Amino acid sequence: MHLRIALLGYGNVGRALIALLAEKADVLRDRHNLTLGVTGIMTRSAGGWLAPNGKGISPADVLASGWPERDIPVGGESFSGGSIGFVGLAPCDALVELTTLDARTGQPALEHVRRALSAGRSVVTANKGPIAHAYRDLRALAEERGGALRFESTVMDGTPIFNMAAASLPATTIASFRGTLNSTSNYVLSRMARGETLEEAVSGAQRLGIAEANPANDLEGWDAAVKATVLANVLLDANLRPADVLREGLGAEAMRQAQAALLPGQTLKQVAEAERSGDAVTARVRLEALAPGDLLAHLSGMEAGLTLRTDTMGDLTIIEGEGGPGQTAHGVMADLVAIAVTLAGR
Amino acid sequence: MHLRIALLGYGNVGRALIALLAEKADVLRDRHNLTLGVTGIMTRSAGGWLAPNGKGISPADVLASGWPERDIPVGGESFSGGSIGFVGLAPCDALVELTTLDARTGQPALEHVRRALSAGRSVVTANKGPIAHAYRDLRALAEERGGALRFESTVMDGTPIFNMAAASLPATTIASFRGTLNSTSNYVLSRMARGETLEEAVSGAQRLGIAEANPANDLEGWDAAVKATVLANVLLDANLRPADVLREGLGAEAMRQAQAALLPGQTLKQVAEAERSGDAVTARVRLEALAPGDLLAHLSGMEAGLTLRTDTMGDLTIIEGEGGPGQTAHGVMADLVAIAVTLAGR
Repeated sequence: MHLRIALLGYGNVGRALIALLAEKADVLRDRHNLTLGVTGIMTRSAGGWLAPNGKGISPADVLASGWPERDIPVGGESFSGGSIGFVGLAPCDALVELTTLDARTGQPALEHVRRALSAGRSVVTANKGPIAHAYRDLRALAEERGGALRFESTVMDGTPIFNMAAASLPATTIASFRGTLNSTSNYVLSRMARGETLEEAVSGAQRLGIAEANPANDLEGWDAAVKATVLANVLLDANLRPADVLREGLGAEAMRQAQAALLPGQTLKQVAEAERSGDAVTARVRLEALAPGDLLAHLSGMEAGLTLRTDTMGDLTIIEGEGGPGQTAHGVMADLVAIAVTLAGR
Repeated sequence: MHLRIALLGYGNVGRALIALLAEKADVLRDRHNLTLGVTGIMTRSAGGWLAPNGKGISPADVLASGWPERDIPVGGESFSGGSIGFVGLAPCDALVELTTLDARTGQPALEHVRRALSAGRSVVTANKGPIAHAYRDLRALAEERGGALRFESTVMDGTPIFNMAAASLPATTIASFRGTLNSTSNYVLSRMARGETLEEAVSGAQRLGIAEANPANDLEGWDAAVKATVLANVLLDANLRPADVLREGLGAEAMRQAQAALLPGQTLKQVAEAERSGDAVTARVRLEALAPGDLLAHLSGMEAGLTLRTDTMGDLTIIEGEGGPGQTAHGVMADLVAIAVTLAGR
């Protein structure tokens, strides 16, 4: 099986993905009889290239080219149109959507995904926007046109959640979930618990590359709300949008006050949760003072955790030790392998 | 897809499996286009039955029959031979091996599995013996004859470990693992930590059905050693036998002494671990005094946890909230669905 992929977006995750696919080329061939070729990459800041003929360029050759700091890989042709045009022209089996999230609308990623699926292609996205804003439509479109839609890396980087549920919980009903999904908030809270002020903790997180220049999106719960929407829509068969997620008592001032009000033994975490009750699914993000008996209380500032409450297995918890572009790239690779296995079985 | 299954062993897990398959019949049909028929069940104490013709008896009808307390289900014929004869005669696509573990040899389960695979059938086993004693041979036999071999429920009941690794970590190398795998030991230790004597804690575990009449197999680390062997052989590509696992400082007297010697803040757990170093894999089970920063220290007495150290995802930890026959049955069901999906794709 040879899978041709095209990448939209080539920041930290895209680069980590190409490096990982190059590193794992032998393993993918030996374990899965799978080779991959890159038929194009486009990035907003540096333009793009297409390899319109043949199997595409090997990840190792893309990596070795040093593009975009150096020239386009040999066999590639410069592409200067927009991202919609790129989706139409890149001759791929699977589009890899890695553009920047717009949490409010999911665009333009949503349009990229829609167009690729409409053309019968498969899509892997690490972008939460399309799944948070249009999962049901996209799922139906993928079924109708015969492509696959996969998105492991939208929550907790590449930690097996969606692929695990699909492959290993084949007849399970998930009634609720609860987790610490936003690494910036929980890292900042872990430093505040050690005596730092919010400002000191945020500066520390920024130095480590965990927090953005403006951390409000994380501290005010928007990132976790979008992730909770994705989890609820996929695992609880909800039909939520990020604005439907209750965000309660969040933000910098609330964090200061809640940290100061903690009782001995308690740990403050930003927790996202959702539960189904009859036909309704309710999701919320809030600061919680966790008791010592709560497993989530014992996650370090770098760890993320998610507990699924199931009818067949009771509570299942999965914990990611540390996240980053490499982990996100792993989830994209896992999705690509799953797509290749599906296509090869047809 | 219709999958015919035969069960060897019909204790708590076998009964939970039939009940679960009956309960989930609609879900299996709707999500996976899958129906199951039972073509025979044999149990050492109560004999067995075969349904030699047709698609087998639905799990709901097996459940409703009340066998073995009541009569054989309608359509079944009494079978009075031995288990090897049963494997030869039961007309199934997948044999479900649920007999009692003999940790020393893996028999007779190993012979059941070998014969079924030799006949080109698939096998699901919740019995650790065959995988701990002959994984490489059985894997090769399955590949040669075209059957599948699955064993999710051998470690941490039906918690997704092997299926998760296969489906969601497709190009990952696992360098080591570490976990609390024996529920009896860790439940007993959790009660000792609250001030009970070992004898009181063991009695409590026996009343809850967690500990056997003679808990030595658990407290002396044999159960965890067999599980560590299975994990090492499958996830670390080792070729160990249970006797190769180092069992250090275990047993009742060691537990008393180690519990008494704990420093403030430490938690005592029975920990199983293995690591690869070059061509060698070393596995051990021992009592560990865990520091408060160790996630495993915060698992309750009912929880089991396993951390995988990977090259692609860093540390991944999965925690089972509570185990039992229902969870074990879930793992068997997940394996059966995976086999059906594979067979349907051919």
